[in-house]
Amino acid sequence: MDAAVTEGFDLGRWSGERLVQVERALSDWVVADAPAGLGDAMRYAVLDGGKRLRPLLVLAANEAVRGNALAALRAACAVELIHAYSLVHDDMPCMDNDVLRRGKPTVHVQFGQARALLAGDALQALAFELLTPDDERIPAAVQARLCRLLARAAGHEGMAGGQAIDLASVGMALTEDQLRRMHRLKTGELLQGSVMMGAACGQVSPTAHQALARYGAALGLAFQVVDDILDVTADSATLGKTAGKDAQQDKPTYVSLLGLERSRAHARELLQDALQALDASGLQDTRALRALATMVVERNN
Amino acid sequence: MDAAVTEGFDLGRWSGERLVQVERALSDWVVADAPAGLGDAMRYAVLDGGKRLRPLLVLAANEAVRGNALAALRAACAVELIHAYSLVHDDMPCMDNDVLRRGKPTVHVQFGQARALLAGDALQALAFELLTPDDERIPAAVQARLCRLLARAAGHEGMAGGQAIDLASVGMALTEDQLRRMHRLKTGELLQGSVMMGAACGQVSPTAHQALARYGAALGLAFQVVDDILDVTADSATLGKTAGKDAQQDKPTYVSLLGLERSRAHARELLQDALQALDASGLQDTRALRALATMVVERNN
Repeated sequence: MDAAVTEGFDLGRWSGERLVQVERALSDWVVADAPAGLGDAMRYAVLDGGKRLRPLLVLAANEAVRGNALAALRAACAVELIHAYSLVHDDMPCMDNDVLRRGKPTVHVQFGQARALLAGDALQALAFELLTPDDERIPAAVQARLCRLLARAAGHEGMAGGQAIDLASVGMALTEDQLRRMHRLKTGELLQGSVMMGAACGQVSPTAHQALARYGAALGLAFQVVDDILDVTADSATLGKTAGKDAQQDKPTYVSLLGLERSRAHARELLQDALQALDASGLQDTRALRALATMVVERNN
Repeated sequence: MDAAVTEGFDLGRWSGERLVQVERALSDWVVADAPAGLGDAMRYAVLDGGKRLRPLLVLAANEAVRGNALAALRAACAVELIHAYSLVHDDMPCMDNDVLRRGKPTVHVQFGQARALLAGDALQALAFELLTPDDERIPAAVQARLCRLLARAAGHEGMAGGQAIDLASVGMALTEDQLRRMHRLKTGELLQGSVMMGAACGQVSPTAHQALARYGAALGLAFQVVDDILDVTADSATLGKTAGKDAQQDKPTYVSLLGLERSRAHARELLQDALQALDASGLQDTRALRALATMVVERNN
């Protein structure tokens, strides 16, 4: 499989069709009638925002393995809820203390800290509720596997663990290995987890499973390298968040460690690794996965 | 089944044997080597503390239905992790702002607010990870059912929703119905959920299922009524937390609504309802469940 196959693929159209489903499902499942304004805070945190990269990765991987579409839509939404809750908690005053996200007041600014904390907690629970419907069309084995993957990607050996390292690393000199570990946990595990959750909606050979894991790992790391590059090169308007924040907060980044040019080269290497993994996967249609990896590295926000 | 059967049952011995298993399992599963001190904060939040009422309810219900003991031990620990994380977040300055719990500094006092927030988040993820091991001895259907029950009990229609109502109710006059709803969500759903998770480790008839749900609902409400009574009648040393706090914070309680005597009578009625539900369950050995309900109502801390 080569670049020509990807070239004939319209990612914008593919994504657009799937995002309609994802947005509708999120709006249906994150209900406003949760008690005492909690539902409003949850919806505010989730709806109308974000590139929905993680849901798209779930759906693309599921399509590559021809898995269960009902399971995949739930998995896509569940992983987005985990991502959304992590942003709510991360923005709070005791963490990054951000007042704006995607041009809107952050959840704790809009709803108060206590409700932001609870909304994040409830979104995490809702993610696991979405994965385990009382619905025989989604086999229990798939439900359990999805929960296992998401719990690990979100927990102390995944996203939450990475955030703890991040907190402890401000102002510290990290080696490239330490920086890689932080990012692998903080953002990489959930991105790779999205790919593996999509794969878990179907049956895959050990070869394909390993290839998708390699693709997900490379894409997860590439995402963060590009994030670090954009923090230096893009302006806040393009980025939709405060540019230059890492340097301001004295956070270790790929750019501070490797410099801009080597960081760019590293991102390109990671993209090649992700694409080669797909070549070796034995899966028939990996066009969406290829296009998403390319987009992650070539994006400007 | 009558009181005599319960009288011949040694709850202290029964609980003691099971708590050894639960404490060992929690210590094995909540590992200290999570990154950047996160594991230490998680262990601090979970180990050496609490009556472990929820795990005991899971194990008692599982024994009543003769379910899968491996699943039940995981479920017992998972529900305790959810309870523990809720206390960590509830104690934070933006919520109840408590500095002491069980005579020790609260997690955010000991480890800082950011790490307390992340430790709570990671404990919630770990709960779902515990429920979904890659272990064929626990059928996927049981794993999925346990996740479904726990997610619902913990989320916006359960514990997190109840906490949101609680926050919004300080200084407000609630009707008995509103107060009951708040408590049903805030503490009742997780207590009832513990019973139903124990039951989900085995096979139960619809009659037994309904009876256990009724038992769990009555026990959950009784727990809160007794909590409100003890807040007025017990001293802080016996209680292990600050007595009189509800009145001080102008929180609505059963005692403020019904008075002390009617609250006591209500607790006794709820206990009778719980025991009658077990009588109607058709289950053979409900002694531990009976003894736990009685203990919940007769406890003095």
